[in-house]
Amino acid sequence: MKKIILLLFALHAMVSYSQTDEENLKEIYKQALTNGKSYQWLDYLSNQIGGRLSGSLQAELAVQWGKKELEKLGLDKVWLQEVMVPKWVRGAKEYAFIESSKKQTTNVNICALGGSVATNPLGLKAKVIEIQNFEELEKLGEEQIKGKIVFYNRPMQEDLISTFNAYGGCVNQRYQGAVEAQKYGAVGVIVRSMTLRLDDFPHTGSMTYDNLPLEKRIPAAAISTNDAELLSTSLQLDADLEFYFKQSCSQFRDVLSYNVIGEITGSEFPKEYMVIGGHLDSWDLGDGSHDDGAGVVQSMEVLRLLKASGITPKRSIRVVLFMNEENGLRGGKKYAEEAKRKGENHVFALESDAGGFTPRGFSFDCSDANFNQVLSWKPLFKPYLIHYFEKGGSGADVGPLKTDNNVLAGLRPDSQRYFDHHHAATDTFDAVNKRELELGAATMASLVYLFDTYGTNPLPKQSAVKN
Amino acid sequence: MKKIILLLFALHAMVSYSQTDEENLKEIYKQALTNGKSYQWLDYLSNQIGGRLSGSLQAELAVQWGKKELEKLGLDKVWLQEVMVPKWVRGAKEYAFIESSKKQTTNVNICALGGSVATNPLGLKAKVIEIQNFEELEKLGEEQIKGKIVFYNRPMQEDLISTFNAYGGCVNQRYQGAVEAQKYGAVGVIVRSMTLRLDDFPHTGSMTYDNLPLEKRIPAAAISTNDAELLSTSLQLDADLEFYFKQSCSQFRDVLSYNVIGEITGSEFPKEYMVIGGHLDSWDLGDGSHDDGAGVVQSMEVLRLLKASGITPKRSIRVVLFMNEENGLRGGKKYAEEAKRKGENHVFALESDAGGFTPRGFSFDCSDANFNQVLSWKPLFKPYLIHYFEKGGSGADVGPLKTDNNVLAGLRPDSQRYFDHHHAATDTFDAVNKRELELGAATMASLVYLFDTYGTNPLPKQSAVKN
Repeated sequence: MKKIILLLFALHAMVSYSQTDEENLKEIYKQALTNGKSYQWLDYLSNQIGGRLSGSLQAELAVQWGKKELEKLGLDKVWLQEVMVPKWVRGAKEYAFIESSKKQTTNVNICALGGSVATNPLGLKAKVIEIQNFEELEKLGEEQIKGKIVFYNRPMQEDLISTFNAYGGCVNQRYQGAVEAQKYGAVGVIVRSMTLRLDDFPHTGSMTYDNLPLEKRIPAAAISTNDAELLSTSLQLDADLEFYFKQSCSQFRDVLSYNVIGEITGSEFPKEYMVIGGHLDSWDLGDGSHDDGAGVVQSMEVLRLLKASGITPKRSIRVVLFMNEENGLRGGKKYAEEAKRKGENHVFALESDAGGFTPRGFSFDCSDANFNQVLSWKPLFKPYLIHYFEKGGSGADVGPLKTDNNVLAGLRPDSQRYFDHHHAATDTFDAVNKRELELGAATMASLVYLFDTYGTNPLPKQSAVKN
Repeated sequence: MKKIILLLFALHAMVSYSQTDEENLKEIYKQALTNGKSYQWLDYLSNQIGGRLSGSLQAELAVQWGKKELEKLGLDKVWLQEVMVPKWVRGAKEYAFIESSKKQTTNVNICALGGSVATNPLGLKAKVIEIQNFEELEKLGEEQIKGKIVFYNRPMQEDLISTFNAYGGCVNQRYQGAVEAQKYGAVGVIVRSMTLRLDDFPHTGSMTYDNLPLEKRIPAAAISTNDAELLSTSLQLDADLEFYFKQSCSQFRDVLSYNVIGEITGSEFPKEYMVIGGHLDSWDLGDGSHDDGAGVVQSMEVLRLLKASGITPKRSIRVVLFMNEENGLRGGKKYAEEAKRKGENHVFALESDAGGFTPRGFSFDCSDANFNQVLSWKPLFKPYLIHYFEKGGSGADVGPLKTDNNVLAGLRPDSQRYFDHHHAATDTFDAVNKRELELGAATMASLVYLFDTYGTNPLPKQSAVKN
């Protein structure tokens, strides 16, 4: 019996794709590289609209633009899905300096973290205590922290190959730094920017106050890595120095915004939905080209590529341009909520939100059966140098769609340069290479095509598992 | 019997590396990413010395710098190897315009091809005939070509995944365009720049006149891709337009230069040599950071990494900074010539000359036995996302070392952005990412370490092959 099972597995592996699939992938890549639209779309989104934080005028322009461009593609349906989003506004450019105990000042580059409160209009000046992690907070205690600015200076770990892992090892300083430091009486928080480069650009990003009442919230800002090094060195020479910073950001009431959705209705299984998406909002410092303009235009391009390559999807393929990934995830949650309410069967979802760099493969959140099916397709991807197929996370926006039976995936581009740009003024159109962007779109379209062609494997019934 | 062979193969595959190897690779990558020298070296070579065409002052400064830096590494030997190199000088910046038949002029961006003759000091003006390939030359014949400038406008093929393949499909226009066009009486040659981008930067590169007598040589220049498009469109509207260009380049007598060589002498097999190299010369338009400053500093870094990781090579490991790859290959030929003359057994040579981008793997010129040994190491490289191990070419400089028994290899970085910079003013330090460069060096050092540890497999004796 076992032998037969093995044989069946082997046969299954042998017939896991056809020559038609090879030809279709070839056509998809060719269309993307010779006739692609993604780069031109990104040019408009980045250079004509620019940074588009949730609730901003630019975010609304991006919604209108996305809808209009999807309508031009001749999809079966295009619509907007209402979603209430937070509106945080940076205000005037932040200002900061180090003041030595001899009253000499040196200006440094900071930016408010997204969601932070403002400082007093005259700014905040206090002594600084540098720490690496929350454990040190506890050790130092209120006695040494009270009245001071806490300076989180744990750098991203350089010897990790995936820069996302290095980011994961640091980002709690940014997200929870203020609420943790406040417990010990800190008056403000300065966080080393989340990048592996030494440069002058502060990197913003979301943070939380949990449920702290307004009056207990302390302002938090990111400092460029060069200035983090300067501050750290200065503290070693002069522990009594003070740090001054001023920021005038504020949080408004939630405002109405939209997810932008387009659909090619399936020819055979219209009630099986496959979602491809990126997020339309971005931070405000750059123009959000890598995060996540790239994912937006690649997701749009997937549907265009399928049509341009003469592929008629059996299942309903949706592109979703999610709103508010950066500071709320309201769009991703809303889409999943509505899908559940309507009983829509989402068999597959793919997110691109890791930059427009050369694609290396995908990360999959799915059952072994579905993952093995993906592995059987690996040879199809080899001509395109796509080699990374691993189990792992998918993406923040598609995450809420997870069921026991479906397949969630995330595009995994080369990660080395991502945090050079992430959430900073350096996330701009010129940092995106046309071919790298296009290869990403083609790689996504290829995976979507294969899952549309072969479907997903639902979980075996409980009885079968037992055996 | 077959089963036993298969079993032996399986066993061989199982013992093809050890846990120590895993640990050594980990240490090599860690050293490269946390304590690497390659980026700092490249900063000096690119920003303090700059473009370093063979025979230039900068090339000589680069030789002295390379020797000094290798001496600091505490190798067993460092020396210079004399080599005579060609000296071609660009002279004043080139100047060119399109003149319509109504005498309206539009300036365009060109640069002389390396080795080209100058135009008349007053410049050259002639009608233009646009062609895609040499076959068209033959079809058009002397009647339609004589007295004209031939404009080669075959673009690089966008849908090839490897940009080097796209380059290979076009570069004969640049290398042989002048000598072919001259046969039909052309007075000059303009070649579309070898890049997949549309931009304003002309890309130089080597060309040949074969054995044409001096008086028959016609000047040749590259035109930026934007201006190639402009010229082509203009010709469609106005076939009688003229093209003017002026360049004042000249060829001098050969001058003395050097390969720079450093060696760690092997502890067990000092007479088995392993070479790692890149080329020290570069074109003159940019600072040669990708081509091939990256290969130079990565090759130097390989020896430093082995030492820093506490590895004592069994075989003699040499770094060779080759002179004159770009327009003569004199350094590569000279090194191989001397090695042969001295009867040095070069078992392995690795070249890095494809840019300082994220490494993807290697191309190997070697026997099946050696290639299979490499394949057995693939799992060791997986944590570093190194996946590309293919048979193919190695590199221009190490090519002359080829024997039946040895292994030649070329580092294969991601190629998407390479021709954005290749031979143009855009080949500058800021286009190199520190981590991508360092990962390349670590990947090279890992392969060198493995070949040093396990040796190469000499070809089986003839009798064994027969069986």
